[in-house]
Amino acid sequence: MPISKQLSEYLKRGSWIRNLFEEGQRLSKESAEPVYDLTIGNPDLEPIQKFKTALEHAAGGNVPGAHKYMANAGYEETREAVAQSVGRDAGLDGCSKDQVVMTVGAAGAINVALKVLLNPGDEVIVSRPYFVEYQFYAENHGGKVVFVDTKADFDLDPQAIEAAITDKTKVVLINNPNNPSGVVYPQQTLDEVGDVLRRHSAGREAPIFLLDDAPYRKLVYDMDLCTSSLKAYENTLFASSHSKDLGIPGERIGFLLISPRCQGWQRVFAGMAFANRCLGFVNAPALMQRVVASLQDDVIDLDWYRKKRDRIYSALTELGYQTPYPGGAFYLFPKAPGGDDMAFIETLKAKRVLVVPGTGFGQPGYFRIAYCVKDETIDGALQALAAVMRK
Amino acid sequence: MPISKQLSEYLKRGSWIRNLFEEGQRLSKESAEPVYDLTIGNPDLEPIQKFKTALEHAAGGNVPGAHKYMANAGYEETREAVAQSVGRDAGLDGCSKDQVVMTVGAAGAINVALKVLLNPGDEVIVSRPYFVEYQFYAENHGGKVVFVDTKADFDLDPQAIEAAITDKTKVVLINNPNNPSGVVYPQQTLDEVGDVLRRHSAGREAPIFLLDDAPYRKLVYDMDLCTSSLKAYENTLFASSHSKDLGIPGERIGFLLISPRCQGWQRVFAGMAFANRCLGFVNAPALMQRVVASLQDDVIDLDWYRKKRDRIYSALTELGYQTPYPGGAFYLFPKAPGGDDMAFIETLKAKRVLVVPGTGFGQPGYFRIAYCVKDETIDGALQALAAVMRK
Repeated sequence: MPISKQLSEYLKRGSWIRNLFEEGQRLSKESAEPVYDLTIGNPDLEPIQKFKTALEHAAGGNVPGAHKYMANAGYEETREAVAQSVGRDAGLDGCSKDQVVMTVGAAGAINVALKVLLNPGDEVIVSRPYFVEYQFYAENHGGKVVFVDTKADFDLDPQAIEAAITDKTKVVLINNPNNPSGVVYPQQTLDEVGDVLRRHSAGREAPIFLLDDAPYRKLVYDMDLCTSSLKAYENTLFASSHSKDLGIPGERIGFLLISPRCQGWQRVFAGMAFANRCLGFVNAPALMQRVVASLQDDVIDLDWYRKKRDRIYSALTELGYQTPYPGGAFYLFPKAPGGDDMAFIETLKAKRVLVVPGTGFGQPGYFRIAYCVKDETIDGALQALAAVMRK
Repeated sequence: MPISKQLSEYLKRGSWIRNLFEEGQRLSKESAEPVYDLTIGNPDLEPIQKFKTALEHAAGGNVPGAHKYMANAGYEETREAVAQSVGRDAGLDGCSKDQVVMTVGAAGAINVALKVLLNPGDEVIVSRPYFVEYQFYAENHGGKVVFVDTKADFDLDPQAIEAAITDKTKVVLINNPNNPSGVVYPQQTLDEVGDVLRRHSAGREAPIFLLDDAPYRKLVYDMDLCTSSLKAYENTLFASSHSKDLGIPGERIGFLLISPRCQGWQRVFAGMAFANRCLGFVNAPALMQRVVASLQDDVIDLDWYRKKRDRIYSALTELGYQTPYPGGAFYLFPKAPGGDDMAFIETLKAKRVLVVPGTGFGQPGYFRIAYCVKDETIDGALQALAAVMRK
């Protein structure tokens, strides 16, 4: 076997998601009838005009050396703009470029953070349901994921997290707003998690870090600003990207920020810049760094998402689907009628509707709807979801 | 200590290169006199006009979904263009998009390849002098680097490679044209390495792979086409980028190709696409994929480099510096007079000339000159190199 045991295992594990995707392709080809695909978080929304203008400007500008290597952390101007935006939103004093590394998306940022922090065998606590890639990311760096449950409404459970802490715990990894549930964690819950981590960090050689994967931080529909891990806890690494808030996931532009309240953040920062290099990212794409520097206060059309969320959430609730309240991101995570998510997605598939089973996120019995799609897709899906519920 | 033991060790190891860099910064600030910095492979040459036109076109084009995720392997059109270019240069039939994954630079490509191939403890044979990042890359994926010597002229030594092969050998990693030596390996040497690997792969569960890091493949000055690992051996993974041939290293656009002659390449390809995802690269930057699709047969001004190479190589030879013949890339790797490279770079630094000691590439007694700089920098450096030699 030419490929490694780990990757071979991953391919096996990953194959049912691929099968799902290929099933969709097959359905599309077999018949001219539409397929209502709600599986992928790949927004069907063009970036805002301001992004396009900034991109054309950056592409056309004859800045000498615009495409050369820069420091591994990225352009100072971009890092400072990110620090100001994140720091202001979190009400955090002292945020500056010195705490920010520009990365190849939030996925790059999380891998950089874990490379910096994990010794072999260190544990990463992850709350279910979780973004499926986290397990790969932890294992890339010799870490071990320890799963804990959330509460019934999919809010974080500080007591469950506390019960999972061992001598080997190095990182608690959260995702706020959450994929797949769309839940925005209340500030009080984050504060409680902060208290737990503070208490258990006392007397340790190194603190337990809170790593917040926050690519949806600007996609919240009932509040002006998302709740904040940086407010809740001093030893926080904040990973984000512009994939969702500017709608440019293919461009791989994100960042990792270490809280200026973290003791010894300077050393963590040095590690972040070095990890960006030694993992082979080297630096975030130069041109996009330049583009996003001026777009830190911008966001795609939130109303486009809010309307879709409101419509599907109330339709599903009316139909009798139990759905945790989706305050952010662009996902809903309803309970699968009958309780068997794998059977349920097959029933939907027969009606040409594709969704991801909760099993894929460590939470069987639920299914994920990604509503970053055209209204026609939602129309068709709602019809099928209604028909299935009525049976 | 907040950061991992491995990264802490890396930072220590990496610190003398950083010191060198900071020394240069300090020298620049202390006095208005110029500093002649020949340390970094970051070309001082703007991309060709055709690149700029393609970039403006891609940035201005209103292609729907241009910034969305695509398949992890990249756009089919780009992958096909890469396959045609590499396949034609190597005289290889059957190259197609099906063997190509677009990556975040060649560094991303090497990490993807090693993630696909290595089980913990597997050995990666690397010939000295070597690009300093290789050790990090192998260790990222649980691999162990085994160093072997090259011949006196820094050509690969097939016998040395053969002697280093054990049951654990999974990859032989080469870099052609070579950084830091500028040497282009002769086709016959590559063929001999291929013979060695073929012989030692017989009867194994999986073959030994040749991983060729080839970002300088188009920067050769005495031949039309670079010599080819793909010609020499069937189980070859070819990693490259457009950092050097289009002069856009900051944009992080490269690729990894598995030879269509490799038995079971389909499985390796599936692993490559998955590794691109699970390492957090996800995909190569979308916009640059679009741009380079039409530039596969283009290259920056080779004469700009050739003239500099000819000038420094003959000047150094005349001065009495022993320098292996630099057929490609933009580096020279002369012997340090006196034999102590660390002492020699200090002597040069006193004359405001910065070069990298061979110790940094596993080859003490030599020093690296990166000649991708302005002529004035070369003027000043040659004066100092002459003065030092005369002493």
